[in-house]
Amino acid sequence: MASWNASAAISTFLTLEHISSASEIQDDQYETPLLQVVAEARAKGYDAISIPLTTEKWKKRWSDMCLLPTGSDRDMEIAAEQRAEAWRSKPCFLKDEVTITRLDEAEAVTVMVSEWLELDATDDWVRHDAEIALQQELSYASYLNVQSAILPAPRNRDHVASYARIVNACLKNTPYIHLSIRLPIYNPSVLQSSSSTSILDAESILASATRSPSRCTPRLAVSGSSSEKLSAAPEGELNGTWEMWDLIRSICDYNTRLTLTLDLSPPLPTTIGVLSKWAAESVRNILLPASTFIANTKGYPVLPKPTQSFIRDCMIHRPTVILSGAGAGHHARGGETAYSQYVRHLEKTSPAVQAATKSGTVENFAQGYQDYLQAPLQPLMDNLQSITYQTFEQDPVKYRHYEEAMYRALLEWPSEERIIFCIAGAGRGPLVARCLTAIERSHHDAFIYAVEKNSNAYVTLQHRQEQEWGSKVKLLFGDMRFIDVPEKADILVSELLGSFGDNELSPECLDGAMRFLKPDGLSIPSSYAAHLAPLSSSKLYNEARATKDLKSLETPYVVMFQAVNILSGEGGGLSGKCGPQIQECWEFEHPRRDPVLDSRGLPTTNSHNARSAKLNFYIPHAGVLHGLAGYFEAVLYGNIGLSIHPHRKDQISKDMLSWFPLFFPFREPLYLPSNSELQVSIWRLTTERQVWYEWHAESFLSSPSIANPDPALSRSSSLGSVISAQPSVGHLSPLIDADDTTFLEKTRLPEDSAITAYETVKIGQTALHNPGGRSSWIGL
Amino acid sequence: MASWNASAAISTFLTLEHISSASEIQDDQYETPLLQVVAEARAKGYDAISIPLTTEKWKKRWSDMCLLPTGSDRDMEIAAEQRAEAWRSKPCFLKDEVTITRLDEAEAVTVMVSEWLELDATDDWVRHDAEIALQQELSYASYLNVQSAILPAPRNRDHVASYARIVNACLKNTPYIHLSIRLPIYNPSVLQSSSSTSILDAESILASATRSPSRCTPRLAVSGSSSEKLSAAPEGELNGTWEMWDLIRSICDYNTRLTLTLDLSPPLPTTIGVLSKWAAESVRNILLPASTFIANTKGYPVLPKPTQSFIRDCMIHRPTVILSGAGAGHHARGGETAYSQYVRHLEKTSPAVQAATKSGTVENFAQGYQDYLQAPLQPLMDNLQSITYQTFEQDPVKYRHYEEAMYRALLEWPSEERIIFCIAGAGRGPLVARCLTAIERSHHDAFIYAVEKNSNAYVTLQHRQEQEWGSKVKLLFGDMRFIDVPEKADILVSELLGSFGDNELSPECLDGAMRFLKPDGLSIPSSYAAHLAPLSSSKLYNEARATKDLKSLETPYVVMFQAVNILSGEGGGLSGKCGPQIQECWEFEHPRRDPVLDSRGLPTTNSHNARSAKLNFYIPHAGVLHGLAGYFEAVLYGNIGLSIHPHRKDQISKDMLSWFPLFFPFREPLYLPSNSELQVSIWRLTTERQVWYEWHAESFLSSPSIANPDPALSRSSSLGSVISAQPSVGHLSPLIDADDTTFLEKTRLPEDSAITAYETVKIGQTALHNPGGRSSWIGL
Repeated sequence: MASWNASAAISTFLTLEHISSASEIQDDQYETPLLQVVAEARAKGYDAISIPLTTEKWKKRWSDMCLLPTGSDRDMEIAAEQRAEAWRSKPCFLKDEVTITRLDEAEAVTVMVSEWLELDATDDWVRHDAEIALQQELSYASYLNVQSAILPAPRNRDHVASYARIVNACLKNTPYIHLSIRLPIYNPSVLQSSSSTSILDAESILASATRSPSRCTPRLAVSGSSSEKLSAAPEGELNGTWEMWDLIRSICDYNTRLTLTLDLSPPLPTTIGVLSKWAAESVRNILLPASTFIANTKGYPVLPKPTQSFIRDCMIHRPTVILSGAGAGHHARGGETAYSQYVRHLEKTSPAVQAATKSGTVENFAQGYQDYLQAPLQPLMDNLQSITYQTFEQDPVKYRHYEEAMYRALLEWPSEERIIFCIAGAGRGPLVARCLTAIERSHHDAFIYAVEKNSNAYVTLQHRQEQEWGSKVKLLFGDMRFIDVPEKADILVSELLGSFGDNELSPECLDGAMRFLKPDGLSIPSSYAAHLAPLSSSKLYNEARATKDLKSLETPYVVMFQAVNILSGEGGGLSGKCGPQIQECWEFEHPRRDPVLDSRGLPTTNSHNARSAKLNFYIPHAGVLHGLAGYFEAVLYGNIGLSIHPHRKDQISKDMLSWFPLFFPFREPLYLPSNSELQVSIWRLTTERQVWYEWHAESFLSSPSIANPDPALSRSSSLGSVISAQPSVGHLSPLIDADDTTFLEKTRLPEDSAITAYETVKIGQTALHNPGGRSSWIGL
Repeated sequence: MASWNASAAISTFLTLEHISSASEIQDDQYETPLLQVVAEARAKGYDAISIPLTTEKWKKRWSDMCLLPTGSDRDMEIAAEQRAEAWRSKPCFLKDEVTITRLDEAEAVTVMVSEWLELDATDDWVRHDAEIALQQELSYASYLNVQSAILPAPRNRDHVASYARIVNACLKNTPYIHLSIRLPIYNPSVLQSSSSTSILDAESILASATRSPSRCTPRLAVSGSSSEKLSAAPEGELNGTWEMWDLIRSICDYNTRLTLTLDLSPPLPTTIGVLSKWAAESVRNILLPASTFIANTKGYPVLPKPTQSFIRDCMIHRPTVILSGAGAGHHARGGETAYSQYVRHLEKTSPAVQAATKSGTVENFAQGYQDYLQAPLQPLMDNLQSITYQTFEQDPVKYRHYEEAMYRALLEWPSEERIIFCIAGAGRGPLVARCLTAIERSHHDAFIYAVEKNSNAYVTLQHRQEQEWGSKVKLLFGDMRFIDVPEKADILVSELLGSFGDNELSPECLDGAMRFLKPDGLSIPSSYAAHLAPLSSSKLYNEARATKDLKSLETPYVVMFQAVNILSGEGGGLSGKCGPQIQECWEFEHPRRDPVLDSRGLPTTNSHNARSAKLNFYIPHAGVLHGLAGYFEAVLYGNIGLSIHPHRKDQISKDMLSWFPLFFPFREPLYLPSNSELQVSIWRLTTERQVWYEWHAESFLSSPSIANPDPALSRSSSLGSVISAQPSVGHLSPLIDADDTTFLEKTRLPEDSAITAYETVKIGQTALHNPGGRSSWIGL
């Protein structure tokens, strides 16, 4: 549970040139040239250092062994193969092939492994030998106690699965080291083509010809793929690199030692909807070459607006920002320190940092609880501790709203009438106190019954009555579902809501309390609704399964979301059937006027509190579903409410602290392509003894269908197909991200298009979660 | 491990009318009318009986309580709701509401639960009360020790998730009973619309209006959905009902007590490619009304050809065929027994039954081993038992081919030369014996070294040498990788192949044996290749996870496939990149002429035996991926081979018994839509001590893309998108099944279509299986 004092670190990237120039002008004070450049960098204020692990000599030896020069003869081949086999059987460095050789040199250093290793080469042998080299480099780094290594970017979508398999093997074989995948936000070919923006050796990948004549499968030259990609339009590849990352971390089974090093060298797109997905990923480093900076009017280095904004948003990850070339004099003013000062400025102006550091916000209140899973309270089954009451009583907004609701409700009654309040679940008394204030403000005659079943809190209530409240309040000890109350109430006030509204059994408790509400009485709250949205978060997924108990992935949690991306967008989707980004599941209203009650005035069964919902969400950008975000919104009285709905909470109950959202996890991540649709089913189920939720999701993809005059050919399933009510929205393909209005405007279909409808096809589903309440339930 | 003696059972469906007519003419010999009709049915030769569990009286009471008649007033509503609440709190039948009341009546009876229960109604309350009724019916059936109950067909795709959740709850709450989902192969609306073909009460679903005014969410009338569907074209809904079944069994987590009752009332399509998916499902019953039969020229009842063919194929499931209306005189000739005689005829002419009953076939040899998972042999690590050798020596085809290969190889040598054979891995000597025969046939002078490392088998070899072979054979005891052989061989013969070719380490063993092969010597086999295809099988999935050990889902098994469906089709797919239905992964050739050997003549590392493959499969029909089928094909010499490749085995080595295919399971089922593509990655990896496979898959879907003159709008990812090389193939939509040539011909795009290319979007992936050989490996 880190706090915001742990700010982003700033690191400098030292090149091989830095190190070799230091060796020429070495100061006697330092034992090695590397120690000298590290000390100099620290003196300049950098928090950390990044360096390449290997030298050009290693690259040359590996290439001579493992890549067959064109035009080489059979004897040369055999000689190379003999050297390679000797190396493969016992991989080992020569002294001059590595940049660091001592523990003290490696301290707090992040290493970049050889960038030229093509772990996803088309050629089987290049991949094979790159894997051995990678294992060798990581084994050496681990020997020197290096904590973190950055791997070369994947380059070849066709063989990313092999890249990922190799990384997974390295994670298993090298137990402690953290591996971070370097990844441009775009197609990596952009990075490779513009050497001026790359901070590393941007030399093109070494070409290799087929090597071993004994190999049965035909092998291709390795150089083709990267140069082909240079011609691709970078705008079209916003999802491409994320898709590679997703495959890598999935194949590595979300290993917590695997992170991302986002390379911001290429300029970012102006529409950043597609970038929000990185919020849900494990971003550890941000690579930022000085050449990415532009000069402001005074000549100081600044970043383009989209990059500024993206880096600000990334501050939730507390990344290490790796600057390179800061000392190369790219900009006229400010010198080397201007770059890191600028990054510090971005950090301070990050919305997340600002919210966290401003007192009174829920973000500030929640410091240390971001993305931390808590079991929801079960106040009906468990008697809360006094400290728990105290925490929640700190919420200024919630109780102010309750007071205002009670005050306005009072005004509905004629001033001469004596009004009976019942506080059902008085706890340590905050609502009693607020009720007394409301009565005072209204100048009405009123009396309060305060019901509480927690025997311990009842002692506090007795104390407060004696000290503060006197005869205006009568305390009643017992469960509101069964207790006898001397007279019926006009206004029943309760605070039984959970993060999802009904998840602390407010409906069932208030059913019991209705016995002592007058026929024309009212309830505060008068209604509450549960809301859901699909979310992605590798952090939450890993947290939920950390216990290794499958049940932990079928239990809802209370969580202050941070490294989370809501996957749904606004808009109807191609089918026209999708609702908004966050959708209401169901509502409860109080008082209910059920026709059927038993002799005690209680409902015969709890059937009326069962609920189910089926929600359709539109998914504009590809992502991985890890769970559902649950929110509530309650009407206390009239237009006074409480809400944690992200779009409405600031209008309804800004800075309310009492509730974090609910997180319903899914056992297995579900891949959702761009422009797909997600159907979520959720049930609130009940027996006589317990209440629980079950949840499930199915994914669908729409594709254009051709108008066909022959009905006999129309074989599409009416069960699965949907004729779009809004064909003119015209998202052309699942690949195209369609959240951004400017883009939508452009992609309307040409008038003569044959496409008039969309067909929806199922593409995936989750398991049913928590069937029968087997993993989590709430006791009645 | 059932044998084919357990043939399909034939059951008769007794209607309520049957039972009530029996009660009028009751024979004193029977204690109850039902016992009488059951005895009569058995006397007619039926193996089993199916009856409805409930009567019209129950339907009326439930409807009066739970469905609100239109135009009812408030008092009627309250009265109905009071009765309903009393029922919900204590569900109970009245005597006349059920057809059976005694244990003896229920013996060997399959019951149909109330067909009118709408578990997937649009109305929340109808679903809720249908669930209580279903639980009540199953609880009662279970009380009477009924073993199997058939549930009403799902009708409403929008609420199938709720149907499935209810079925799952029933499976949990009723511990022993088997539940079977009635399902037409088409959209169920077809069934409901044609009452003449339905064997049950085909009355339309009861209409209901909204009932409870206290419910917050708006409720809709329930009758709409089914009547709307009547207008849908049945040809278009071939996948629709399967999709519902898939959702139900997935939500029920592949519960082994959940099966299918396929309703064959509607006529089947003539193109049955789409029907092959049912082979992979758990089909327990087949509903076959007499009205489905047509009359042949003589007036006897027969079935249409597609239905005949489908029922024959279904015999692999050993289903119960439930006949109904057989006594109603639908056909002029043959009487009631003609229907069951005809079904028996279909069973006898089923290809699976014929193959299983014909001696000498692999199907006959494999009786009892269908879909039974066996761990692959590890003959290098484990010394095989004599009984194991004996089983495999029974294979007449394999050894005949080996003899022929050795004979033809011998003929390559000049007849005057003395030829040295080495049998590497002689086992109990079958190849030695065949080699001697080949030598005799060729009239060559030859000598045999027989190497064997199994000390126990070596005793058998010594015995045979003394008794049979004499001085033509020299036995050598030891591992072929390390043993000294007195002279080098001209022909090295081995039988080290596994189901996947290299999976018993033939490459590594033969690497060792190359030391004693002459430079121009040859190996029998000279090469072998591994082949893969994606498969679906709920049976194998359940078998593989039956141990509850996650490792069991990352281990390849040897299996004689039966209830399995190969998901891939021929053809290039929309991307034009897909290969054939079954694809080659890699090949090994012997002898290899490696340039680099150590002083012992052995390879320095095992790198050259690492392999990887990435295969693209086209998936014409929607299905669920459960694993990969692995096969091998070997060239022994020239055109003499061994093959278990399904398309080629009959040409190459018909009736060979020694190998069942390999099954690589996936941990989680992966849903694949119609017209999707599957990319399978598989690796053969090796250390100095072991060899293992890792495997992984990604799924993709292509959709038409619009030709767009503005390149700036072409934002599709070049990493994921593919311009089809064959746009004229023109599968219009993922929903349309495209395996059938006749259909393909029809669906060529109109000339003026704007579609000129396809874009491929990723839709799903599996985990990486068996990383680092953690779950299964083969010891060197």
